[in-house]
Amino acid sequence: MWQQYEIQLKPKNRGFHLVTDEIVSQLTGLQTISVGLMHVFIQHTSASLTINENADPTVRTDFESVFNRLVKENEPYYRHTLEGSDDLPAHIKASLLGPSVTIPITDGQLNLGTWQGIYLCEHRNYGGSRRLVITLNGE
Amino acid sequence: MWQQYEIQLKPKNRGFHLVTDEIVSQLTGLQTISVGLMHVFIQHTSASLTINENADPTVRTDFESVFNRLVKENEPYYRHTLEGSDDLPAHIKASLLGPSVTIPITDGQLNLGTWQGIYLCEHRNYGGSRRLVITLNGE
Amino acid sequence: MWQQYEIQLKPKNRGFHLVTDEIVSQLTGLQTISVGLMHVFIQHTSASLTINENADPTVRTDFESVFNRLVKENEPYYRHTLEGSDDLPAHIKASLLGPSVTIPITDGQLNLGTWQGIYLCEHRNYGGSRRLVITLNGE
Repeated sequence: MWQQYEIQLKPKNRGFHLVTDEIVSQLTGLQTISVGLMHVFIQHTSASLTINENADPTVRTDFESVFNRLVKENEPYYRHTLEGSDDLPAHIKASLLGPSVTIPITDGQLNLGTWQGIYLCEHRNYGGSRRLVITLNGE
Repeated sequence: MWQQYEIQLKPKNRGFHLVTDEIVSQLTGLQTISVGLMHVFIQHTSASLTINENADPTVRTDFESVFNRLVKENEPYYRHTLEGSDDLPAHIKASLLGPSVTIPITDGQLNLGTWQGIYLCEHRNYGGSRRLVITLNGE
Repeated sequence: MWQQYEIQLKPKNRGFHLVTDEIVSQLTGLQTISVGLMHVFIQHTSASLTINENADPTVRTDFESVFNRLVKENEPYYRHTLEGSDDLPAHIKASLLGPSVTIPITDGQLNLGTWQGIYLCEHRNYGGSRRLVITLNGE
């Protein structure tokens, strides 16, 4: 059994945002799957998805601090600079974190660990609304 | 055809560990799938999974050295510090490497390259036993 | 419905290369799937796959510059050095970017965003031809 959803996330500030509930609330058929997988795919190259700690918001703040130091803006050797100083670093961060997450489904629910949540990683200063394609498969 | 397994890995020291055999030996139904996919998901946010070289153990040692320099402990700007100096770096490393791997199945076996193996990446000093949810799908 | 393809990519220079068309042109059954997923897996540990910007070639040039600085050659603490100065950094880059991408299929086509393409990330100086295992599943 296949289900596919195309959804828009509300625009987010640059940084890391917990979006598990914003996603799951739109998956009207999730509960019908007893065993399967959910694939979440972001259709952009300057925002990304990851899974990390869902409790302490300073983890998300620290992610933003660390990734800004790992991939700095305005390096003199960058050539792709026309779209702003945040653009090329956003592309690199997006590939370091990846455009998709795949999560097991068990008994109609995401089978995440206790402390896991889905992060939308917004790497642009003004990224706007981001589109996701969510594909569920199971039985 | 769907199969799902929840398994515990034996506790590992901080570092990178080859776990292909520890995983595959518990998949009693793998050989029944002629074409499909295996999804391995770790239910934690300070350990991760990747695929890399399965032969020379110094590759795994070097991974630990490199990731410790890429994401240092005790940076003065970290705010999520209550759980120890290894905790926030562990979260970052976990997202850089990712919480899951997906591997093709062909003729009842994982279709890995000759030199590929699955790594459990233990980013905490005392991470304990780690839980995996493994989902097989195929025909 | 399952389809699996094993293909060889033409040898590429070290760097980041857009390979969407080279891959899709070999998937003779893609158009028969109305909803599903494509999993592309590289059977190597010193090359990798990612999804990023498909238009401006300087993005790919900048990726090579950034990853070469993020994971340098010839660090004195590397121990896995017998296969050349590009080898251990290639393994690290491969795990940072990952050995696979999974992309939704909708109406017989990859459901990528407008600006997204698949990159073959060749981290070795002389990597040669790279093998991919591509698994399609859908209905």
